[in-house]
Amino acid sequence: MSKKGIQSKDPHVLNLVKIVGVDPVRKSILYKKEDLLAYDCDGFTLRKHLPRAVVFPKNTAEVAAIVTYCHENDLPFLARGAGTGLSGGAIPLNGEVIISMVRMKKLLSVDFENRRAVVEPGFVNLKLTNSISDKGYYYAPDPSSQYCCTIGGNVAENAGGAHCLKYGVTTNHILGLEVVLPNGKVIEIGKDGVPDQPGYDLLGLLTGSEGTLGIVTKITVRILKNPEGKQTVLAYFDKVADGSKAVSDIISAGIVPAALEMMDKTAIEGVEAAAFPVGHPKDIEAVLLIEVDGIAAGLDEQINQILAVCNSNNVREVKAAQSEQERAKWWANRKTGFGAMGAISPDYIVQDGVIPRSKLPEVLKRINEISEEFSLRIANIFHAGDGNLHPLVLFDARIPGESEKALEAGSLCLKACADVGGTITGEHGVGIEKREEMRFVFTDEEIIAQTEIRQVFNSKNLLNAGKLFPSPGRCVEVKNEIAAAAAK
Amino acid sequence: MSKKGIQSKDPHVLNLVKIVGVDPVRKSILYKKEDLLAYDCDGFTLRKHLPRAVVFPKNTAEVAAIVTYCHENDLPFLARGAGTGLSGGAIPLNGEVIISMVRMKKLLSVDFENRRAVVEPGFVNLKLTNSISDKGYYYAPDPSSQYCCTIGGNVAENAGGAHCLKYGVTTNHILGLEVVLPNGKVIEIGKDGVPDQPGYDLLGLLTGSEGTLGIVTKITVRILKNPEGKQTVLAYFDKVADGSKAVSDIISAGIVPAALEMMDKTAIEGVEAAAFPVGHPKDIEAVLLIEVDGIAAGLDEQINQILAVCNSNNVREVKAAQSEQERAKWWANRKTGFGAMGAISPDYIVQDGVIPRSKLPEVLKRINEISEEFSLRIANIFHAGDGNLHPLVLFDARIPGESEKALEAGSLCLKACADVGGTITGEHGVGIEKREEMRFVFTDEEIIAQTEIRQVFNSKNLLNAGKLFPSPGRCVEVKNEIAAAAAK
Repeated sequence: MSKKGIQSKDPHVLNLVKIVGVDPVRKSILYKKEDLLAYDCDGFTLRKHLPRAVVFPKNTAEVAAIVTYCHENDLPFLARGAGTGLSGGAIPLNGEVIISMVRMKKLLSVDFENRRAVVEPGFVNLKLTNSISDKGYYYAPDPSSQYCCTIGGNVAENAGGAHCLKYGVTTNHILGLEVVLPNGKVIEIGKDGVPDQPGYDLLGLLTGSEGTLGIVTKITVRILKNPEGKQTVLAYFDKVADGSKAVSDIISAGIVPAALEMMDKTAIEGVEAAAFPVGHPKDIEAVLLIEVDGIAAGLDEQINQILAVCNSNNVREVKAAQSEQERAKWWANRKTGFGAMGAISPDYIVQDGVIPRSKLPEVLKRINEISEEFSLRIANIFHAGDGNLHPLVLFDARIPGESEKALEAGSLCLKACADVGGTITGEHGVGIEKREEMRFVFTDEEIIAQTEIRQVFNSKNLLNAGKLFPSPGRCVEVKNEIAAAAAK
Repeated sequence: MSKKGIQSKDPHVLNLVKIVGVDPVRKSILYKKEDLLAYDCDGFTLRKHLPRAVVFPKNTAEVAAIVTYCHENDLPFLARGAGTGLSGGAIPLNGEVIISMVRMKKLLSVDFENRRAVVEPGFVNLKLTNSISDKGYYYAPDPSSQYCCTIGGNVAENAGGAHCLKYGVTTNHILGLEVVLPNGKVIEIGKDGVPDQPGYDLLGLLTGSEGTLGIVTKITVRILKNPEGKQTVLAYFDKVADGSKAVSDIISAGIVPAALEMMDKTAIEGVEAAAFPVGHPKDIEAVLLIEVDGIAAGLDEQINQILAVCNSNNVREVKAAQSEQERAKWWANRKTGFGAMGAISPDYIVQDGVIPRSKLPEVLKRINEISEEFSLRIANIFHAGDGNLHPLVLFDARIPGESEKALEAGSLCLKACADVGGTITGEHGVGIEKREEMRFVFTDEEIIAQTEIRQVFNSKNLLNAGKLFPSPGRCVEVKNEIAAAAAK
């Protein structure tokens, strides 16, 4: 026993305890293997690595002190929110010290007049809306994990959500950040929440940088006034091609729904077998969940236009939510869709590609071919309105080789997106999962330019190393070739 | 005479001619002093420098060849669009070779289904809307110079405009860029127009980088469906404080007008004396120009709410535009407002600060004090809804010392914005004008981090050097101090 109950021979653990102190009730540091096991992966479960320790700072000063300590002692480290990330961004590949932000979870201030709120990074996404809804305000980005994911994690991943079609992703709602740089220095970007600072767009650069450029310790977000009204409809299609065409036609008609979601037949089988069934017909190929919001007086007209588009695309049935309860049930059915796959498959991986909307029928067809080639079922639950696909590859990890097959099928789905001018992630990030797939959308030179930007911030590459970019091999070779050519 | 009519002894001019060729009708290169004089400044006229030459490439390959030539021969160079920039970003401080983009002015494609268009950088902003309006679409960012400014220049400056309150600034409408890097290599960002690429947000980083990171040669922009309806009102206030309060109350009420513009008494005197008078009363302290757009059925309700807010803030008179002609007249009156100052003052400089909306009354009061301290009239014409102020400092350059006084007063206006948590530019950029004012909002360390990012792209600092950041002196000292401290 040493340091008031800390039983560790690791001098770094003992030094980190000096920074975060010993909490008699809730542990401020974890270092025993049995405690660390809960931190060996995040929402991406196919790779597991133990961290060296997990520390729980309570404020910016403690974060800065931990980071400074790691920087000075060459200890790899990374930040973690709720650990709901789907691409492995919080997995301690290099035995990192994990800096968990979950104790920095205060709502620091709300300024209704200027429409902004300041939160600590561990503040849970949905709690923000819950805290301001009595005044008629909400926070727009709504990832499916919003009931537990943190806004700090949302910033790292530039999280999206069903309502990002109309309202934009996280980066469109961030007005300011306090950031601990990888050397322990603290900077503020977008002071006091006035966006569009001069100089380079550091706010944009940090947002979505997947925890590789700094650790966010304070976040100023935009809050929005609740729309006066909402209307929500479900539309069932016998043919997936008709559903896809309806999506494209709705957008082309100039309607911007708040949300425009699609699930295919396999997905429907899953959500109907899981916790929130709503009675979707099982013999249809596609369901659209469409929501419009805004000034109440304008909603009927939009809904009528949507009905007309659905009818002209052979819709089998359309129905409008008759109450807020019914609407909430439909959304619960959709938002728990990924987890629902557990009801019909022992394992699944979710992919996250983006395509130009007009390519939807073509890409869904290609995903179907991939499913047949690999003899693996692939469900599709996705943000159809913004072309953000989520193919869910179902598999059984107990069957030797099937995990690898599923990963390969998932990668091919992303290739299909990239091949039609799309990209490999809309909201889940690259993490460790899609590092090699970065080559589908970037040349070596473009990747090198990005790693050089990382170098500016993260000069020792101790912060979340090994994420976001392909393994260095080929890029380093190319860089050397470029240097050699320049030297000639 | 040499090179088919090129009379220059400058070997670089002769080599550049080999790239762009000799055009029998329109010159492809300018090198004589009398021709270069037109390029010695841009919309910021207080500093003038002659370029070495001006070249007019016709395509990306020519731009890349010019840049490669400059890079290899250590010639400073910069890109220029229409030259309407207000902060001196296109002024050849170092005798640059100016690469004028005005011959690359094609609309390359329009994809209505996926709502995007691809343009060359020299394509004029307003021409895009004019080209697609028959199909019911438009391009949202609308700087006051939109009838002549280029979209390439808009990207460099992250240009705003009156309707950016609801629709966002240029960066929110850019889906992809083709960029010639300062070493002559060509990269594509956001291929084929799917936004939110993984990795660092290079699209955001390049947009608004004021021509210091690369030269944009192709731009994919978002196009929007025309709103179904628009309503526009003018509201006159006896007291500027009441006008400010009305702005704040409109936003707090949850209304997001498409535009919410304000002019003060001095500004009204100017616009009424210039080309587009509309009969504003001359004894009022503030006029608001308010526009709402969207689904037609919802507009009356919004206008009624706006009227109620104006009434509760002692409005003298409110009137709605009775026709599209009347609306267009009101907008011409507002949009030519800067130039209109020429009717009441020999010279003026326009400033461009941003503040949290709630600070409007406080900052307008401070600007008034600055006006009195310097005995210079200051007019205010601005995007009130998003807190983007444009103090216009009126002066007479023929009076010795008055230019300097005006610059100092302008700088103090920006300081007043920064002091309340605002910033020093909303849409005009830093250029050479506001380099020192960057210190109002950034620490030395934050500025150094940005110059290091520039270094990644612009390693020889030949591209538009001396812009955007404070003169190196103090920053270099600080950097050396940091390095010395780290070495200890």
